Amino acid sequence: MLTLYDFEMAPSPRRARILLAEKGIAYTAIQVDLRQQEQLGDAFRAINPRCTVPALRLEDGGILTDNAGIAAYLEATYPEPPMMGRTALERAEVASWNARIEMEGFMAIAEALRNSAPAMKDRALTGSVNYAQIPELAQRGLARAQQFFVELDAHLAGREFVATERFSLADITAVVALDFARVVRIKPGDDHPNLMRWRKAMGERPSMAT
Amino acid sequence: MLTLYDFEMAPSPRRARILLAEKGIAYTAIQVDLRQQEQLGDAFRAINPRCTVPALRLEDGGILTDNAGIAAYLEATYPEPPMMGRTALERAEVASWNARIEMEGFMAIAEALRNSAPAMKDRALTGSVNYAQIPELAQRGLARAQQFFVELDAHLAGREFVATERFSLADITAVVALDFARVVRIKPGDDHPNLMRWRKAMGERPSMAT
Repeated sequence: MLTLYDFEMAPSPRRARILLAEKGIAYTAIQVDLRQQEQLGDAFRAINPRCTVPALRLEDGGILTDNAGIAAYLEATYPEPPMMGRTALERAEVASWNARIEMEGFMAIAEALRNSAPAMKDRALTGSVNYAQIPELAQRGLARAQQFFVELDAHLAGREFVATERFSLADITAVVALDFARVVRIKPGDDHPNLMRWRKAMGERPSMAT
Repeated sequence: MLTLYDFEMAPSPRRARILLAEKGIAYTAIQVDLRQQEQLGDAFRAINPRCTVPALRLEDGGILTDNAGIAAYLEATYPEPPMMGRTALERAEVASWNARIEMEGFMAIAEALRNSAPAMKDRALTGSVNYAQIPELAQRGLARAQQFFVELDAHLAGREFVATERFSLADITAVVALDFARVVRIKPGDDHPNLMRWRKAMGERPSMAT
């Protein structure tokens, strides 16, 4: 069986959990307590030298060390239901939106949080190396996240899903980013009717409870 | 025929050019002069509202607006030679390394450049919105890029390619990142013997001259 190195409160491993649930793949979860910096300890470093979750251990013992690798592997090994598009054009649309949500949404929120939270002093980036907080980057992250939600709201006008006509990896990444934004007090409101409608519909999928 | 919106001096469109060359795909290139901020003008905004290159126009008029979409589309439409892995595990390895090089290499170099170059005042990020430079982020970008090259050098010990046993998208992204780093005066040297050997071997591929 697959083993997911996970931390329930963190947004990045949630992306992997939702993907596994949508594909109906059984796995065992092992919690890595990020609050205790367990990801930086020798035990977890031997599993994933990048010191990040999620990581996915395969049945042969191989380890996938990030969401990009996990999604590519699961889509190729368990192709149904497809989460990264069926046709070439759909594959492009999902890849493009997924990357955009990561860079303009997810990363902006992470910048806002990690460069301001006292508990994250010197942990402005994930990974094995410490980096000092940059307060201006926290401010820029907030501005970028707000801008991104305005753009995503406009994009979702008349659309049921972020990319293509079906649920995809882009919806997963967007839901996790949107929910993650609460930690920096950004929530969609009356100014984001499409985003609100889409998030409500997404909430009806059982995978989103993970 | 495909049309690539390109700018010869910029690193991001070079990634698309090398991929097209490796797959042997014919295309027409249109230069978008980033020095003149042509990407922010109405004409290009009508083509790619994200105001970035590369963008790829398909024969049916559809537009792919970033490297993620371009790579996914080209791999699905022109599968040989594969640039994103053949097996599930190979696909994971390429996706993971490609994402890592983007985040830890490419972006670090871009942060170092765009937050320090006088010509990039208020253009600390690509795209349609202006963001002020953050000098501390330029410094952090330099440190991160140097750290990344140390890690990539260690990874390349005994390896011919960045991911899998064949040339892949991860090599393309890494070559472009390495060459891009010259703009912030980072070059591999005697401390990076594996990186030097790999870059020299890559230079023998005709695609790299693009």
